[in-house]
Amino acid sequence: MAGDPIRFGILGCAEIARKVSRAITLAPGASLHAVGSRSADKASSFASANGFPPGARAYGSYDAVLDDPDVDAVYVPLPTSLHVKWAVLAAQKKKHLLLEKPVALNSAELDLILEACESNGVQFMDSTMWMHHPRTAKMREFLSDSQQFGELRTVHTCFTFAADPDFLENDIRVKPDLDALGALGDTGWYCIRAILWAADFELPKSVIALRGPILNRAGIILSCGSSLYWEDGKVATFHCSFLENLTMDISAIGTKGTLRLHDFVIPFEESKASFSAATQSGFTELVTGWVPKPSEHVVMTDLPQEAHMVREFSRLVASIKNNGSKPETKWPTISKKTQLVLDAVKASIERGFEPVEVAIS
Amino acid sequence: MAGDPIRFGILGCAEIARKVSRAITLAPGASLHAVGSRSADKASSFASANGFPPGARAYGSYDAVLDDPDVDAVYVPLPTSLHVKWAVLAAQKKKHLLLEKPVALNSAELDLILEACESNGVQFMDSTMWMHHPRTAKMREFLSDSQQFGELRTVHTCFTFAADPDFLENDIRVKPDLDALGALGDTGWYCIRAILWAADFELPKSVIALRGPILNRAGIILSCGSSLYWEDGKVATFHCSFLENLTMDISAIGTKGTLRLHDFVIPFEESKASFSAATQSGFTELVTGWVPKPSEHVVMTDLPQEAHMVREFSRLVASIKNNGSKPETKWPTISKKTQLVLDAVKASIERGFEPVEVAIS
Repeated sequence: MAGDPIRFGILGCAEIARKVSRAITLAPGASLHAVGSRSADKASSFASANGFPPGARAYGSYDAVLDDPDVDAVYVPLPTSLHVKWAVLAAQKKKHLLLEKPVALNSAELDLILEACESNGVQFMDSTMWMHHPRTAKMREFLSDSQQFGELRTVHTCFTFAADPDFLENDIRVKPDLDALGALGDTGWYCIRAILWAADFELPKSVIALRGPILNRAGIILSCGSSLYWEDGKVATFHCSFLENLTMDISAIGTKGTLRLHDFVIPFEESKASFSAATQSGFTELVTGWVPKPSEHVVMTDLPQEAHMVREFSRLVASIKNNGSKPETKWPTISKKTQLVLDAVKASIERGFEPVEVAIS
Repeated sequence: MAGDPIRFGILGCAEIARKVSRAITLAPGASLHAVGSRSADKASSFASANGFPPGARAYGSYDAVLDDPDVDAVYVPLPTSLHVKWAVLAAQKKKHLLLEKPVALNSAELDLILEACESNGVQFMDSTMWMHHPRTAKMREFLSDSQQFGELRTVHTCFTFAADPDFLENDIRVKPDLDALGALGDTGWYCIRAILWAADFELPKSVIALRGPILNRAGIILSCGSSLYWEDGKVATFHCSFLENLTMDISAIGTKGTLRLHDFVIPFEESKASFSAATQSGFTELVTGWVPKPSEHVVMTDLPQEAHMVREFSRLVASIKNNGSKPETKWPTISKKTQLVLDAVKASIERGFEPVEVAIS
């Protein structure tokens, strides 16, 4: 039955699971099948509120989702500290794994997850939605064009938002036993991913965190930044924070071109997104204006980026399930590289802003 | 004769002097009176080609301009290494001083210039044109608005351009005996100024240069960057280069708002310029779009920014000349702060990327 949609189970009723449930509903080749919560009532309510089809299951435990033989794949939006346990268990139960970011507390934990996926032949993908927006592919074309963009020399990214007092007191992202990576794991994950993406996933050689990170009383990062250095002289910087107005930028400058966008994580609008591209920019004769000016490129999309993600993940899972294909290694590799850089930034902060080599392992 | 325009003399026939000559022609209250070059022929040709009025003088030396009793003010676009000699001499000859950036090779040299201006009662202003664009005042209003922007937390600026092989071999900005500050003095000057401007000219406490600056064989900086740190936790980064596509950005993020522009040094167009302002940005309910989105603000101008600069400088000079006012100290103070930060960045590079305190003197 090659045409059967991939049936998803969801572990937990996190806020973000509502968005991904909708994406699973919208994505061709995917269907909602089960949700598990520590409370069966909560799971039921979640299923009712989020368009689960008749026959879908609401379980009072995560285990029940993993034990449901009709579940092909699980989406795991649990707190990061629980990832290693539940992601490994999911893989062992032969469930393909769409894992919310940050994927793990550190690279060693991620290795356990990736090894479990590999040895059980299941697909791994992290839930970094913007990677799947058609705009991202268009921007990649521009960055890859040696005439239009040339060679990448520098990248700056930021992702900040102004968390409210309740978030700063109670959200899992400020709790050491839940999402202990704080803003670095949450918004910094995207900054690092965007830098690696711009660098075509070439790892930097080293990082040096910027000084002055802001921590809460429990030692969780609320705001920080870093510089990143490549062997060939490329340099990148990023800034991530829970304490500043919502902002998400990529500026990538090459020898011949410049790419910019201001909504890279969540596009301003769902159905279209744009980016600015400049090539061989120059001035008018008296340096009183630009010729040519940067141009704005609009990319329309029939599906939101998270549905593109679910569709691509489901396509890979279907190929494994129906055609005996191997899991696509591109996605776990990208996750691992992101985590390696994140670990290095965290280590640099912990070591007083010393340079930290990015592990190659 | 309160209505008489301020009569300008220009020292040298630098490329940029063409643009400033036009600005002097356009600006109310200013007129072109003299140009001096080491070659009288060159001065004559320059005067003819740049709309000098009948009766204007073309001299075969800089001294002759300074000795012309009809010259009220001089514009000095000479190589930076010559600034201290000619700027001090100009002040001693009671000529008001519009000095091209970077204003000096270091803060000690700038002090000699500023002391000469002060003791001779002449106005000092550096030729950082964008400071005078009406857009800049509009952006200042936004940054100063505690409801719209809140408290500044982070700034990133860049200014890069892709110099051609001839520039990289022969331009004064790559020569140790002429503009020895290289890209840091040229494009980095603007980055530092923009950061200070965003911080309402509060000096950072310290800077740490980014690693991996690119130097030419003579040791001149072709590309570099830095991080800047304030006592209150504000952080800034910048990147400047002669080796990348023309790009000039300010991104300033506050607790409640975000300011961005991509043509801060030279607006894309002469007669209008825009910036993006975002306030209390947030997401739609399912985090699939932004509410509100950043808004674009367009500022029209009847004069190019360099003519606004000349008008403001001439207004200050006229006030001193005609009304016995004191020189405006705001402009030399801003120049000095910019130079102090620039010196600290250069020192950090020279000391192997150590933190360098920004001198308060």
